Amino acid sequence: MRLHAVDLRKLKINDPFWSKHVNLVEETIIPYQWRAMNDLIPDAEPSHCLDNFAIAAGKKSGGFYGAVFQDTDIAKWLEAVGFSLAAHEDKELEKTADRAIDLIAAAQQEDGYLDTYFIIKAPERKWENLCEGHELYTAGHMMEAAVAYYQGTGKKRFLDVVEKLADLLCETFGPEEGKLHGYPGHQEVEVGLIKLYRATGKRKYLDLAKYFIDARGVGENYFLKEMKRPGYQNITPELLDYRPEYSQSDRPVREQTAAEGHAVRAVYMYTAMAELAYEYQDQELMDACVRIWDNIVKKQMYITGGIGASGILERFTTDYDLPNDCNYSESCASIGLAMFGIRMANITRDASYIDTVERALYNTVLAGIALDGRSFFYVNPLEVWPDNCMERTSKEHVKPVRQKWFGVACCPPNIARTFASLGQYVYSAGEGELYVNLFISNQAEVDLGKAAVEVSIETRFPFEHVIHITVGKVPEDGMKLAVRIPDYARDYKVSFAGEPVNCQVEKGYAVLTLKEDAALTVSFDAPARFVRANPNVRADCGKVAVTKGPLVYCLEEIDNGKNLSELYADTKQEIEESASELFGGITELIFRGKRIEESAWDNGELYGEHPLSLTDVTLKAVPYAYWNNRGMGEMSVWMKELV
Amino acid sequence: MRLHAVDLRKLKINDPFWSKHVNLVEETIIPYQWRAMNDLIPDAEPSHCLDNFAIAAGKKSGGFYGAVFQDTDIAKWLEAVGFSLAAHEDKELEKTADRAIDLIAAAQQEDGYLDTYFIIKAPERKWENLCEGHELYTAGHMMEAAVAYYQGTGKKRFLDVVEKLADLLCETFGPEEGKLHGYPGHQEVEVGLIKLYRATGKRKYLDLAKYFIDARGVGENYFLKEMKRPGYQNITPELLDYRPEYSQSDRPVREQTAAEGHAVRAVYMYTAMAELAYEYQDQELMDACVRIWDNIVKKQMYITGGIGASGILERFTTDYDLPNDCNYSESCASIGLAMFGIRMANITRDASYIDTVERALYNTVLAGIALDGRSFFYVNPLEVWPDNCMERTSKEHVKPVRQKWFGVACCPPNIARTFASLGQYVYSAGEGELYVNLFISNQAEVDLGKAAVEVSIETRFPFEHVIHITVGKVPEDGMKLAVRIPDYARDYKVSFAGEPVNCQVEKGYAVLTLKEDAALTVSFDAPARFVRANPNVRADCGKVAVTKGPLVYCLEEIDNGKNLSELYADTKQEIEESASELFGGITELIFRGKRIEESAWDNGELYGEHPLSLTDVTLKAVPYAYWNNRGMGEMSVWMKELV
Repeated sequence: MRLHAVDLRKLKINDPFWSKHVNLVEETIIPYQWRAMNDLIPDAEPSHCLDNFAIAAGKKSGGFYGAVFQDTDIAKWLEAVGFSLAAHEDKELEKTADRAIDLIAAAQQEDGYLDTYFIIKAPERKWENLCEGHELYTAGHMMEAAVAYYQGTGKKRFLDVVEKLADLLCETFGPEEGKLHGYPGHQEVEVGLIKLYRATGKRKYLDLAKYFIDARGVGENYFLKEMKRPGYQNITPELLDYRPEYSQSDRPVREQTAAEGHAVRAVYMYTAMAELAYEYQDQELMDACVRIWDNIVKKQMYITGGIGASGILERFTTDYDLPNDCNYSESCASIGLAMFGIRMANITRDASYIDTVERALYNTVLAGIALDGRSFFYVNPLEVWPDNCMERTSKEHVKPVRQKWFGVACCPPNIARTFASLGQYVYSAGEGELYVNLFISNQAEVDLGKAAVEVSIETRFPFEHVIHITVGKVPEDGMKLAVRIPDYARDYKVSFAGEPVNCQVEKGYAVLTLKEDAALTVSFDAPARFVRANPNVRADCGKVAVTKGPLVYCLEEIDNGKNLSELYADTKQEIEESASELFGGITELIFRGKRIEESAWDNGELYGEHPLSLTDVTLKAVPYAYWNNRGMGEMSVWMKELV
Repeated sequence: MRLHAVDLRKLKINDPFWSKHVNLVEETIIPYQWRAMNDLIPDAEPSHCLDNFAIAAGKKSGGFYGAVFQDTDIAKWLEAVGFSLAAHEDKELEKTADRAIDLIAAAQQEDGYLDTYFIIKAPERKWENLCEGHELYTAGHMMEAAVAYYQGTGKKRFLDVVEKLADLLCETFGPEEGKLHGYPGHQEVEVGLIKLYRATGKRKYLDLAKYFIDARGVGENYFLKEMKRPGYQNITPELLDYRPEYSQSDRPVREQTAAEGHAVRAVYMYTAMAELAYEYQDQELMDACVRIWDNIVKKQMYITGGIGASGILERFTTDYDLPNDCNYSESCASIGLAMFGIRMANITRDASYIDTVERALYNTVLAGIALDGRSFFYVNPLEVWPDNCMERTSKEHVKPVRQKWFGVACCPPNIARTFASLGQYVYSAGEGELYVNLFISNQAEVDLGKAAVEVSIETRFPFEHVIHITVGKVPEDGMKLAVRIPDYARDYKVSFAGEPVNCQVEKGYAVLTLKEDAALTVSFDAPARFVRANPNVRADCGKVAVTKGPLVYCLEEIDNGKNLSELYADTKQEIEESASELFGGITELIFRGKRIEESAWDNGELYGEHPLSLTDVTLKAVPYAYWNNRGMGEMSVWMKELV
């Protein structure tokens, strides 16, 4: 039996590191996005999202405006609201959300169809351009939102809407004659259908998800067939001259060996594949998941947990191709990597998946949002020189400062729903067993099948590495408690009331059997360290990064002066860890290094023989997650190493 | 008085280094391109170039096919043919060219209009989309070709055609009321008009060139106005949402301080600006030329003479932004830089301009063509890892191997015409004065105004640095001989019959007064050396390149193994110069270095703490000009430096 996430209504996060981020969802992001979707923010690009629904419902006149997947804005918002209401009651917010759900329900057509782009703009072209139309993608987000809203509030209205939609999908798609044998251009509906199956118990939703995965990439490519049909209309000019590997549909998924194509599409699909491999006990599918996962984390992932190296088409490229200053590494892709990873961990009970989930959450996902919650990175470079982040150049996708909410916004609401559901990553629960994955202070009641236990974590992780765990209401026949030992931990210790205990280690978890209520302390060392990349990563050869625990650090111009490329780290010296009040309290890392002297070049020559001359400097690094919270400037994760 | 180029009919290049390249023009490129333009090459993209003219002339039926500037293929071909016929008689080739000229003449319209795209496809839209229509660009290439053909053969027929076209331009464009107040979207016609003025003496052509330069970027942008006109039709989708700096039309040219926008457009314009500054004794315009030149060579030029750092829009970006693995550095842009530089040198008699001309010709331009003349680089990276040069990614413009002639081909014929006219760079002549710019073996007769002298150069430059110069028919009242002292020369010596002489140095030229026929020897040292970039070039910080004389060297995988990023050069050791038979005879550079050991990473980890471990290696570098002539592999100009 796989492990599962805990009920978010029964988990309260109260963490010195995370709460300031998680609280932004309720305090800032949800209200801001609501205003954005209602076009109430001056100077912002128009959204028209709710107007599209009103027009589709016949309550307003006018045309469709926005991206073909504009509907997903309200879906992701409702999903975040659902998670948020699970944690904290908010009658006003709930009322607003209910009204939005009423509007969505009113826009839904008789047969269950629900996509305002096609309802308003192209009713005759429904399901005709799965490649670009995003109808299934949108449906998937609606399903995820409805399930979250149902679980957060207990209200079924939205769930009814998406069931009707899902029923239509079941009638429309499938292997049977007379049905469309297509699959989504942007995967997402699979995850939605699986969640809907879990919420409703209706097996046909799971079967449809499996159909979409099984059909993908088999035989003649469905999208290329669509494009040959008379009357085909292109929606996205960049997708003319389509290559199926962009959407992982060039081969059957079970034959895929490496992550390829658009990174967000990819990880959303792998997430569904992992779920289905478990549900259908499909070893071949599980093998594909393991193979692709290994390819990502061993060959295509940034040290920050970013994935998708190419700015053009936001895609995976090839093994070890990880340029630092022109990568895409979309925030949403790292969120998808965390989604994939937590499922793999829950199926395999292997903590190494969590090491990567944690890497993505503590670095790329967290960097995606400013400390004030009002601006966002879609693209997450590891090295930035603001001067060359210019429009209409090869670096046009790289922004040196976080951007305000866009007219078309995928990352901000995705970050919001991830923060709002962070509790799902903290624990995994099974029959009489509780796994502690992440070290985030909280109180929770966790259902372990026959009984529910009370558990709490108290810690100042990631800057300190002492984790106090209490477990109450331990069932009489005992329970298993498994606490993750992160890959970076040294001298891992578990103690009860100060008394060290030895415990067995299973796949990266320290495993204990509790017979009664217990208060234990887990501690380990996680000193700051210099980390290198596999030399096959050409971009990082001869360079080092500094990390502490799950946090990757970076140099910023404000701390280290202009031109970070001139700096060398002296890795033979110790890294000093220094407490700082910055960013609400962090550990800064201070170490010795050298800087290339510029004085020989004062005459302005571009090339010359001036010998390299170095001076001593002290370098200061801060968590990558917090870069660009002190104005615009250069930033770099990787530094040259003195040899 | 400015200096001028020599008559190509009176100059024969016979050089151990250059002849093998120059001869390709006649032996390979001209015949190949002729077949390409006639669609006689199996597997090649269709050209349709000559068919377009036949259709425009009413001799064939059918539609226009190809790029909006497809006509320039035949123009550049005829220009190369003109230069080639100047050097070597070839009756067959001349007959073929004459027939092509007949066809062009037949396609020309009554009023002089000549552009098959608009004649065939959009006669109602002539001159309505100067931004993208390339009518003036095409006209400029026709003019350059006709002048070269006239000078190579003495035949006036093509010149008459372009005069009629130029007369139409003079009637159509200008400051007077009733004329169009526009200017070209892609500069080039200015250079053509100036050459036509020189060939015909008709001042109005020069004045029109000046008008185009003077009007550019003044007042409301002409292209943006065009786009607002009813009936405007976009031709090139990438140019929607147009920014005038792309075509250097955002400000008056005299106010421009740095190179900006599309690099080829830019240097073609600067070339014309330099000519006009001289012709009109326009100091303000000359100041702009000097300012922009300095910006290029001190802040925006690769060590190989490549310019235009962005793959997107093939454009200049910002000072010191010179990434090595994703740059554009189009071959045509370096050709344009040489065109600009030789004009600046001829006006100012300053050899430093030639240092840059030489850098461009001996590195980027030469690298643009394979040793067999059958394939070409449009994009000239300084670092290539073939694995990540993938279609549909941020590196899609970077090709790890030279490409065959394209359907739309600008660089190959541009390289051809440059090689065919190389003699124009070797010498510059004035009234009683002869400047030796480049060290290329040749025999020539040079008109010095009152008298013509016979001059010859014999040298094995760039691998040896002894240059024998003989000057015959020295006029009785003597003459000035100026021989360039390159920036890399050490211990420069001039001797007559073994006797050293001291000579004055003026702006980088060693100046001698000859009273009688003379045989002199110029020699200098140009040892291989390690060169560094200004530390503001972030991409090159902590790195070195190896050069010898004008040649920039590179490491290739075939000589140094896989993963060149693992290598460090030990700059404290000597560079050994070793004669090699490679590429028809070169000097290889051998030096000591270190390689990062991979063995610690055998377990396949992507990130870890394994300490950096280095082993001794011997590195071998070959001229960048010749890279990728031995199969596909990694290449790098810049190497890490051991510190």
